[in-house]
Amino acid sequence: MTSLGPNAHLIGKPGSRAMLDTPALLIDRDAFERNIASMAGHARAVGVALRPHAKTHKSARIAEMQVAAGALGICCVTLGEAEIMVAAGLPGVHITSPQVTEPKIARLVALHAQPHDGLSVVVDHPDNLAALARAARHAGKPLDVLVDFSAGHGRTGCADDAALTALVRAAVAADGIVFRGVQCYSGNLQHIPSRDERRSRSLAQLDRLRGMIARLRDAGIEVPIVSGAGTGTFDLDPAARVFTELQVGSYVFMDVDYLRALKDGRNTPPFETALFVATAVVSANAPGYVTTDGGLKCFATDGPTPDVARGAPPGSRYEFFGDEHGKLILAPGAPRPPLGTMVECVTPHCDPTVNLHDYYHIVSGDTLVDIWPVDARGKR
Amino acid sequence: MTSLGPNAHLIGKPGSRAMLDTPALLIDRDAFERNIASMAGHARAVGVALRPHAKTHKSARIAEMQVAAGALGICCVTLGEAEIMVAAGLPGVHITSPQVTEPKIARLVALHAQPHDGLSVVVDHPDNLAALARAARHAGKPLDVLVDFSAGHGRTGCADDAALTALVRAAVAADGIVFRGVQCYSGNLQHIPSRDERRSRSLAQLDRLRGMIARLRDAGIEVPIVSGAGTGTFDLDPAARVFTELQVGSYVFMDVDYLRALKDGRNTPPFETALFVATAVVSANAPGYVTTDGGLKCFATDGPTPDVARGAPPGSRYEFFGDEHGKLILAPGAPRPPLGTMVECVTPHCDPTVNLHDYYHIVSGDTLVDIWPVDARGKR
Repeated sequence: MTSLGPNAHLIGKPGSRAMLDTPALLIDRDAFERNIASMAGHARAVGVALRPHAKTHKSARIAEMQVAAGALGICCVTLGEAEIMVAAGLPGVHITSPQVTEPKIARLVALHAQPHDGLSVVVDHPDNLAALARAARHAGKPLDVLVDFSAGHGRTGCADDAALTALVRAAVAADGIVFRGVQCYSGNLQHIPSRDERRSRSLAQLDRLRGMIARLRDAGIEVPIVSGAGTGTFDLDPAARVFTELQVGSYVFMDVDYLRALKDGRNTPPFETALFVATAVVSANAPGYVTTDGGLKCFATDGPTPDVARGAPPGSRYEFFGDEHGKLILAPGAPRPPLGTMVECVTPHCDPTVNLHDYYHIVSGDTLVDIWPVDARGKR
Repeated sequence: MTSLGPNAHLIGKPGSRAMLDTPALLIDRDAFERNIASMAGHARAVGVALRPHAKTHKSARIAEMQVAAGALGICCVTLGEAEIMVAAGLPGVHITSPQVTEPKIARLVALHAQPHDGLSVVVDHPDNLAALARAARHAGKPLDVLVDFSAGHGRTGCADDAALTALVRAAVAADGIVFRGVQCYSGNLQHIPSRDERRSRSLAQLDRLRGMIARLRDAGIEVPIVSGAGTGTFDLDPAARVFTELQVGSYVFMDVDYLRALKDGRNTPPFETALFVATAVVSANAPGYVTTDGGLKCFATDGPTPDVARGAPPGSRYEFFGDEHGKLILAPGAPRPPLGTMVECVTPHCDPTVNLHDYYHIVSGDTLVDIWPVDARGKR
């Protein structure tokens, strides 16, 4: 076993996709590359920049591909992801979640002290702004910040116009801080099935945001960056003419969550399913179902169940069957797949599924063509 | 950052529990050591051996402590776990899930070829038995197997008495295979809240198993090992006088799942909660709740939500709030904890929660006393 896991010896071998040690996380290279190109083309067409979100893939290699396709940088949700991306030389690393504890601020300042090509972080509270400013002054290197607006989601971000305005003014004034802009991510709107409802709710938020940004600019405050949007609203939000850049993530892979949510309200361009988990039948003693080696330690369980993509008889349906096993329920009368049969599934929610795996197995047709580590898996 | 993560510099520092970089997986050393001693004492008292399950902790260090307390070996559910345990020199490594694919059989034979102090695997199908026998003959080293019985759970294992008997006879006869016994794990019974119902359903299964084992022995087949039971039935099953050893796992840590399920039907000895995740408040802009840095990439989502253990105002309640965040809902009128407040939570389902972390932070009182890697995290 090398540092690329038990399948490293199969790279480049014809037919190796069917020989993989399971469970194995797969990227369909061709669909994946088309997804990257489609989003890059869309952004160019509507005149907005891309800073895709690495929380989805946690891979420096994939971030490099997104930058090569035109992205101006990469978003991270954890400081640990940002440490990986900076170490890999990625430009424009932006941390989308507040870093508030003493250990996190110490690590952030240490990261900022290293040579890098752009690093920023959000703030949503005056106490955190003051702590960051103090640490940056002490380190002697000013820190770029974006002020976070909660946009009705309420997870992080300033709660209202007054709080946002006050925090922006404080950031502009703070010694040790360089105010770079505003972030507004509506995580709560991305999976609304109706495209019309997604559009109207998102644009209502963005109208409000545009008003706030306009008032800041009228007051003489430069707001170079306005960042937001996700795979559910990337093609709706640019109409509001407020975002300077999009922090989309899941589009590179897609998952059952997005495929189901957006089924009746397709986005343009539509993205292809590019991420799968290859599992194998490991027990076949019961009528009507078989047991696979893909359980809740290899698929995220916060969303739907995995969809069966290929390898199983038509009409088969997956259910969780414990930590290390799945139940593949067969359609009435379907033949029982024999022991060892490989069954590929679409991941239910891509981000936390990726976080359960150490390696991406890159496949093209029937061949394993490469293996990439999930560099930032588990990094906080 | 060393190979023990961002908290390594805090080991041994008084008060360091409150200084941890979050989210951090914690073991309360004293409760944890009492759990190991209690189960060891129970097993001695009822005259049954222990081969605790490493699927819960995935740690060679913890396995060593269990063996030091009297366990004769360690169970693993994945081959990757077994590779870690054998490499660490653990004795009596038993793999509780069938290994059927070609890559897994090749790895199993390679592991068996290394020096070790006992290695066995379950089989539940004649095709898998034949494949294992062929591989073991080819490698020139016979392989110990236990035949798996499904016990009404139906995940893995022979479905009925006839299938079990036939497979045992085939294992006894197979060149390259050493038949070592029978495994019967009722994963479906472990969380039944009523102790009486757990007892009656488990003992009904075990009566059936005892009959089968007796018939095998009457037919002149030695059955040295009969393995099963979990943290829900470890003190009920020995009454059936059929298990020679118990493959209990969760008792070392306990979790919300077991604490809730066994609340009205306490086992004897009762085990203490010894596993926590330390999180921190990272956003506090909303009335009635704050946002923590513990989300669904640090807590398993297949069971209940985490319980709040300490650090938050009384009456606080946790809800998932996305991949990297939790919502700490405050009781009416409760003071809002300030940014950076550390909140420790009981893990919802311990096994898959552990699998999301790279390190155990061992705490005693207010001090971080050690850090242990989760050696087999993600190992399949």
